[in-house]
Amino acid sequence: MSDSFDAKPVSSLSNPAVKRLAGLHLKKNREASGLFLVEGLRAVIEGVELGFHLDELVFVERLRDLPPGRRLARLIAGTGARALEVTPEVMIKIARRDNPQTVIGAFHRRDHGLDAVTPAPGALWVVLEGIKDPGNLGTVLRTLDAVGGDGVVLVGDTCDPWSVEAVRATMGSLFVNRIVRTTKAGFLDWRRDWTGRVVGTALTAAVDYRTVDYRPPMLVMMGNEQSGLPPEMVAACDQTVKIPMLGRADSLNLAVSTGIMLYEVVRGRHPLREA
Amino acid sequence: MSDSFDAKPVSSLSNPAVKRLAGLHLKKNREASGLFLVEGLRAVIEGVELGFHLDELVFVERLRDLPPGRRLARLIAGTGARALEVTPEVMIKIARRDNPQTVIGAFHRRDHGLDAVTPAPGALWVVLEGIKDPGNLGTVLRTLDAVGGDGVVLVGDTCDPWSVEAVRATMGSLFVNRIVRTTKAGFLDWRRDWTGRVVGTALTAAVDYRTVDYRPPMLVMMGNEQSGLPPEMVAACDQTVKIPMLGRADSLNLAVSTGIMLYEVVRGRHPLREA
Repeated sequence: MSDSFDAKPVSSLSNPAVKRLAGLHLKKNREASGLFLVEGLRAVIEGVELGFHLDELVFVERLRDLPPGRRLARLIAGTGARALEVTPEVMIKIARRDNPQTVIGAFHRRDHGLDAVTPAPGALWVVLEGIKDPGNLGTVLRTLDAVGGDGVVLVGDTCDPWSVEAVRATMGSLFVNRIVRTTKAGFLDWRRDWTGRVVGTALTAAVDYRTVDYRPPMLVMMGNEQSGLPPEMVAACDQTVKIPMLGRADSLNLAVSTGIMLYEVVRGRHPLREA
Repeated sequence: MSDSFDAKPVSSLSNPAVKRLAGLHLKKNREASGLFLVEGLRAVIEGVELGFHLDELVFVERLRDLPPGRRLARLIAGTGARALEVTPEVMIKIARRDNPQTVIGAFHRRDHGLDAVTPAPGALWVVLEGIKDPGNLGTVLRTLDAVGGDGVVLVGDTCDPWSVEAVRATMGSLFVNRIVRTTKAGFLDWRRDWTGRVVGTALTAAVDYRTVDYRPPMLVMMGNEQSGLPPEMVAACDQTVKIPMLGRADSLNLAVSTGIMLYEVVRGRHPLREA
């Protein structure tokens, strides 16, 4: 196995590959190519190890001779991924930020349909309706990974889970979760045949989130940052619950409330002391 | 009481007031002036109602004749705040974003010292050491408000709680919380005389976060996003606890873990069903 890159050196900001990769910051280009960008050595390695298909790898020149660079070279040897060795200026252009990471990978995205959501024992999915903030979405994926969940179902008009901002906030947990996208009508139709529990959060709910049966398989349903769950999604829940507001604030950040819910759901699933 | 603004119309992007206000995006100008920016009608009203001193108010022309505009005019009449009625272009310049809110206020900041942190019955403070992300900081303040906490103690080199990004993430909860800033040495010295509990989170801790006595007065101590609490801060805790990681992820987002901790702390403080 090779431990040095068979990489093409690129220093021109107008190189077509550079333009193509930088273009993946735009949703239309991600949709057209089926690719998305992953920043950072650790996250790229995670993606390859978890079986995502790496299309193209970009790294800054100085990484070539460092141990992490040699590790990466061994990892991608034989995957068929193209590699570009670029100048710091080119990396800034592709990353579209100052102080970019030393590595960026363009991976093939994996979109799932609702058939991926099966009522297996232990199944735990988060349904996000109309979520708008990619940082919130990525953070939910990170928390879901921390509780050993299965994935998210994105319902209706949501932000793009494959955007750089969302992927960055997952801290590598994107690759562990499955991402399902569907319309609201498609979800409501599918939900009629879902045999597990469905618990949603709503500020108008009367039931405290600590009092509910969360035995799997189950879906935790969360609404849009501004408006929460619409009536038709509330109607699709077996139960709606409320996280008490004890001060002046009348709501929580969506990623925080999802985190509190997920740790409540798994509260009965794991022993009180870890090994 | 007046219900229309005594406001100065401003349409020039080079107006000195516009430059001064836009300059408050920079930390050095916030420090020099003691002012910070608050975006949005609701948050500005919250600030005035909670007794923060409004120095200058900026609003877009079309707000003048709308009910929220008249409400705002009544509210600030007599506060001595200057008001600028600006064009959309000027508002974009001051807000430094496309699609800005209709109102921005420049308020006087309120920094507290450690003498504000008293072991009153029910006292609940979050100590954040070396926090770097303003969105995380603002979100912690929002959650702290939701559980009826007292404020945050920012220890060492942290992001600025008065930045637009941090203030935005608080969703108005900045005004409810007290903000204390101190050095690490100052905190450690002060802590020796603090008679309440101190519980910190650490991934290396052996004790589950669900098993600990959180009776107030108490401090919840959280470390930096990347590295967590350093040894000297861990040593200052009565107890360190761990939130279990049940999947592949090895950590949570800081605002999420703080939210889970805070709701665990207040778990015994409020009845299971709300009125």
